[in-house]
Amino acid sequence: MQQRPLDVLGSSENKRILIQIKKGDKIVGVLKAFDSHLNIWLDDAEVKSPDGQVEKLGTVLVRGDNIILISPSP
Amino acid sequence: MQQRPLDVLGSSENKRILIQIKKGDKIVGVLKAFDSHLNIWLDDAEVKSPDGQVEKLGTVLVRGDNIILISPSP
Amino acid sequence: MQQRPLDVLGSSENKRILIQIKKGDKIVGVLKAFDSHLNIWLDDAEVKSPDGQVEKLGTVLVRGDNIILISPSP
Amino acid sequence: MQQRPLDVLGSSENKRILIQIKKGDKIVGVLKAFDSHLNIWLDDAEVKSPDGQVEKLGTVLVRGDNIILISPSP
Amino acid sequence: MQQRPLDVLGSSENKRILIQIKKGDKIVGVLKAFDSHLNIWLDDAEVKSPDGQVEKLGTVLVRGDNIILISPSP
Amino acid sequence: MQQRPLDVLGSSENKRILIQIKKGDKIVGVLKAFDSHLNIWLDDAEVKSPDGQVEKLGTVLVRGDNIILISPSP
Amino acid sequence: MQQRPLDVLGSSENKRILIQIKKGDKIVGVLKAFDSHLNIWLDDAEVKSPDGQVEKLGTVLVRGDNIILISPSP
Repeated sequence: MQQRPLDVLGSSENKRILIQIKKGDKIVGVLKAFDSHLNIWLDDAEVKSPDGQVEKLGTVLVRGDNIILISPSP
Repeated sequence: MQQRPLDVLGSSENKRILIQIKKGDKIVGVLKAFDSHLNIWLDDAEVKSPDGQVEKLGTVLVRGDNIILISPSP
Repeated sequence: MQQRPLDVLGSSENKRILIQIKKGDKIVGVLKAFDSHLNIWLDDAEVKSPDGQVEKLGTVLVRGDNIILISPSP
Repeated sequence: MQQRPLDVLGSSENKRILIQIKKGDKIVGVLKAFDSHLNIWLDDAEVKSPDGQVEKLGTVLVRGDNIILISPSP
Repeated sequence: MQQRPLDVLGSSENKRILIQIKKGDKIVGVLKAFDSHLNIWLDDAEVKSPDGQVEKLGTVLVRGDNIILISPSP
Repeated sequence: MQQRPLDVLGSSENKRILIQIKKGDKIVGVLKAFDSHLNIWLDDAEVKSPDGQVEKLGTVLVRGDNIILISPSP
Repeated sequence: MQQRPLDVLGSSENKRILIQIKKGDKIVGVLKAFDSHLNIWLDDAEVKSPDGQVEKLGTVLVRGDNIILISPSP
């Protein structure tokens, strides 16, 4: 198994990804950069709260320790 | 005891595994890669919430600190 | 992907940013400095609690581990 | 005191152990491997939830940070 | 951005600062020393609980991991 | 102050100690070994839950991060 | 600011200190030793729970990560 799990994000540069965070929200945006802690820089980001509300935030930096999972193909 | 516990995942490459996470959800998918933090890359993943709902997510990266246990033979 | 996610803050020096913290509050202020833990120094900061209350705090240092996300363009 | 606490697991290789986890569940299985984080590989594992339900899981990898205590002689 | 965020505390030596902690309390006192974890030594400290109670504690050492934010100019 | 706090456990080898854990339980047993994380190996251990129930567990390994305090002389 | 915050404990050796912990209890005792994690060895310790109950424990070792603040002059 010579791939590393974070390699899966490498092919998603400049594509939309979905992030589920521990608080329950989902964040969708265009992946610009990430690091080994899973700190994520997104452009054109929206936050969807569990009650369905959507907040447009533009560029965001998500701190990696909040993340449950990331789906490169939402 | 010369084996290490994460070796148990080595033989599950490209096979379906079950991940139980702290939030209560179960995630099933095909193991593509993992690292020492238990960050996991799955393909063909589904998330099953405690109330029985199933969400198909395709490829996902699960951040290791959310994981309670992994079962290579669900 | 040669950028790092925290680079997104570099261009926000002396500009207003929005910080969402785990407790539910939002903090808005002028970014003066940050580090790799996302410890953040803001000037002219206001804290908005979930019930809509606003508290003006002036200069603040936010400890990075409280942060969910940062939006450089609130 | 020249022994180290994790030495207590060394003599339990291939024997059944009991793991109590923070979520309230108990996991019983045959110890195959462990590391310094208390990541544990069990075979023939069963998870007993606080309400008495038992789930047979076969082989499991338990992430060490979930563990309260391990009893080598359940 | 050549300043570091903790530099903001350097100019507050021997001045009163306000600390908001995760439990909800606010601690006010005279800053005597701090370190990179945000462990803080205060003199003449008071703890104000969310219900308005004030407890005078004199000298205190606050463990940094409890801190949400510090305001050098309360 | 040339002693280190964990030295207090050194003189308790083969003696009964009391451990209070974050979940509310108290664990009493004979100290066999400990390390710098406060991982503790006890023999003849009993777990007392807050409602007064006592469970005899024999030998246990307690993961250090669960511990609030240890009393060498219960 | 050439002092470090933990220096404040150095002058409290063999004196009574007050420790407030995250669970809500207060622990009072005579400081014998501490380390950089704020692991604390106390003699003649008492634990006061939020409902006013006092439990005499004699010698205790408090694991540092439970601590909110320490007051050398209770």
